[in-house]
Amino acid sequence: MMADYRTLTAAELAAEKQELETAYRRIQAQGLKLDMSRGKPSPEQLDLSMGMLDVLSSSDILTCENGADVRNYGLFEGIPEARQLFADLMEVEPDEVFVGGNSSLNLMYDTVARNMQFGAAPGEIPWGKQSVVKFLCPVPGYDRHFGVTETFGIEMISIPMTPAGPDMDLVEQYVNGDPAVKGIWCVPKYSNPDGYTYSDETVRRFAALKPAASDFRIFWDNAYCVHDITDTPDTLLNLMDECKKRGSEDMVYIFCSTSKISFSGAGVAAMAMSRKNLAWAKKYLTMQTISFDKVNQLRHTRFFGSREGVKAHMEKHRAIIKPRFDLVFSMLDREIAGLGIAEWTRPNGGYFFSLNVLPGCARRVVSLCKEAGVVLTGAGASFPYGIDPLDTNIRIAPTYPSLEELEKAAEVLCLCVKLAAVEKLLNQIKAA
Amino acid sequence: MMADYRTLTAAELAAEKQELETAYRRIQAQGLKLDMSRGKPSPEQLDLSMGMLDVLSSSDILTCENGADVRNYGLFEGIPEARQLFADLMEVEPDEVFVGGNSSLNLMYDTVARNMQFGAAPGEIPWGKQSVVKFLCPVPGYDRHFGVTETFGIEMISIPMTPAGPDMDLVEQYVNGDPAVKGIWCVPKYSNPDGYTYSDETVRRFAALKPAASDFRIFWDNAYCVHDITDTPDTLLNLMDECKKRGSEDMVYIFCSTSKISFSGAGVAAMAMSRKNLAWAKKYLTMQTISFDKVNQLRHTRFFGSREGVKAHMEKHRAIIKPRFDLVFSMLDREIAGLGIAEWTRPNGGYFFSLNVLPGCARRVVSLCKEAGVVLTGAGASFPYGIDPLDTNIRIAPTYPSLEELEKAAEVLCLCVKLAAVEKLLNQIKAA
Repeated sequence: MMADYRTLTAAELAAEKQELETAYRRIQAQGLKLDMSRGKPSPEQLDLSMGMLDVLSSSDILTCENGADVRNYGLFEGIPEARQLFADLMEVEPDEVFVGGNSSLNLMYDTVARNMQFGAAPGEIPWGKQSVVKFLCPVPGYDRHFGVTETFGIEMISIPMTPAGPDMDLVEQYVNGDPAVKGIWCVPKYSNPDGYTYSDETVRRFAALKPAASDFRIFWDNAYCVHDITDTPDTLLNLMDECKKRGSEDMVYIFCSTSKISFSGAGVAAMAMSRKNLAWAKKYLTMQTISFDKVNQLRHTRFFGSREGVKAHMEKHRAIIKPRFDLVFSMLDREIAGLGIAEWTRPNGGYFFSLNVLPGCARRVVSLCKEAGVVLTGAGASFPYGIDPLDTNIRIAPTYPSLEELEKAAEVLCLCVKLAAVEKLLNQIKAA
Repeated sequence: MMADYRTLTAAELAAEKQELETAYRRIQAQGLKLDMSRGKPSPEQLDLSMGMLDVLSSSDILTCENGADVRNYGLFEGIPEARQLFADLMEVEPDEVFVGGNSSLNLMYDTVARNMQFGAAPGEIPWGKQSVVKFLCPVPGYDRHFGVTETFGIEMISIPMTPAGPDMDLVEQYVNGDPAVKGIWCVPKYSNPDGYTYSDETVRRFAALKPAASDFRIFWDNAYCVHDITDTPDTLLNLMDECKKRGSEDMVYIFCSTSKISFSGAGVAAMAMSRKNLAWAKKYLTMQTISFDKVNQLRHTRFFGSREGVKAHMEKHRAIIKPRFDLVFSMLDREIAGLGIAEWTRPNGGYFFSLNVLPGCARRVVSLCKEAGVVLTGAGASFPYGIDPLDTNIRIAPTYPSLEELEKAAEVLCLCVKLAAVEKLLNQIKAA
């Protein structure tokens, strides 16, 4: 095992660099084409839900449990059994649930758009008519969240993540102190990309927020609510319940989807909010569409049956995903641990982990990987405006490639992390 | 046959009124519960597409023609074969097509929302930041169109419909003269509710508009593009082609869906626009969602195959719909024609026709029908802000009820039209 790079002399580093460059050229010559950039399920995972295509056939009667024909218009909020299933997944009441199309991102974008255009509640000034609107963005976080707020010209404030969730001292300071702060993006369980789950204490502090703005909202994107990987899954305290205890339930929007349960391109998404918030949202949603795809809702509820059915299904995902995470971790442990040049999270669930390389090296690593045929998520993507101030965080998405591809990709990744580190350390010595 | 009501004496009218009231009470006692309010396909029509549920099964490979796995994320604009099918239906090029979710209304709402928030093109001031924004609304028209513009606070100007389309002198005067006019709602083929199809001359005048506002857009909702009922279907000139001849193609958004082809609750919607407009829309759509339901797109394209497949399928719809329209027309012909108290359109396709009763009687007819257990579209619904200035237009939607129900409903309708007319004529005599 190599010693900690930071203890090496210039000559030792130079020798190491030469070796790494030789290895890098050898790999480059292989003409790899591997993609670890997005949190996409692998084909084997998608195969798990193929039975869903057989659940409804031409010989079936397509009525939902209240007797309505799901093929026709109507049942705007979703079929009752879908509202129930999502209520169980989001741990809320069915009448707090609105079932949408295939994309929870779309529900989130539309919710921001509604609040910009029409305000967050009756009597509130639309966000778009207020002079400054700010959102808190735990970092590293989900690039598509930040993309939504950036699109609407909302000012984004980075809040550092910790293994227990966002820095709540800062969150409280901003939310309770600044009336321009209208929202915060949260992936509370198996956060994207760290894979951290908010602690009970963090959830309680969220519920106990006393926002300076009456139209402040928590965007609680519970994308990975049933997406455990290890034998020691995390648990997340129920934010809606905690809010109800304190009368702050109008502060919360909850989102989830089956994109990483059934088909990423053809799942069902839902959102939950207080009856008051939902009534307000429905006033506009009913102008936006007549109803979402209820046949697909019925297909999902008949296939999964219940939350227990979903959880049993997720065990099958886990059997496919876990070896992929394990493989990358074992490569990192073997190749990088002890060199003092990178740290990484090791989540109990979700789709990602964070690889934090030496400050100033993330972009270089991503670029080296790309030139060797391995596409990673762009460095900085996990930060508002795409700018990681320390240039240190890389989001690793190990689910999509096959184990064989993943081994190759991880090999390239480890090599590039080392090469970028050696380059940096040599430059530091030269500069000194 | 009764004589023209307008020629009757007060005594004759009073006698007729008494007879009609007796008949009305008899019908009321039957406790009917019939719905002719919305343009919903009947269960038999939905049955026509049940084979679609068998098209994809667990033994199929779910790749589209470019080899992509439709189950996963990606192919944001839609799968190639769906873009091709909708291009054929909308008579545009595949790369001018964006395939969305299940609702064309949603695509329209989102398009208005985007233009409100971000402007209709690069460099244009967002509609929402301009002091006044106006839309032209051919009347009678589609209530949900008007609902969208009303929601966004857009001022609506009624433009009278003619059998050849909207009054184009007025349209030209407004569009070419007033820079606050940013859009017009059009259902150019088998218009909702008249069932009129815009003439070639009308389409050419649309293409030749010289809008005072550079961000003026025609919302061309071609909802009934393949929805013929009779042996003498209408044809609609291709607006996009006419615009391209004049270089005005950036002025047009085209919408359509399979809601009244496959399943109203689980179809596929699409929109078409110039490459320039589409590039601008995609800048925001890509922030709104990752991709729409491509499994359902594949299900549709495999089931229908081509535009010809769709047209063959529409023949089956026609066989179910035509007798319904015919039944209501024959009842109206028998009961109402010659009384001088109502006129109605007799479309070659679509889902509706207009019944125009004596001025001041539409609300009364709808209310009388309702109290006899027959729900019609609310009087005024076909006008901006729900106000029919003459209170004369009733939208009739004959597709959903069974023939048996429809006969009963039409009987009630005819009775109520007569009763409301007699009431009005008697009141006029009294007032004179």
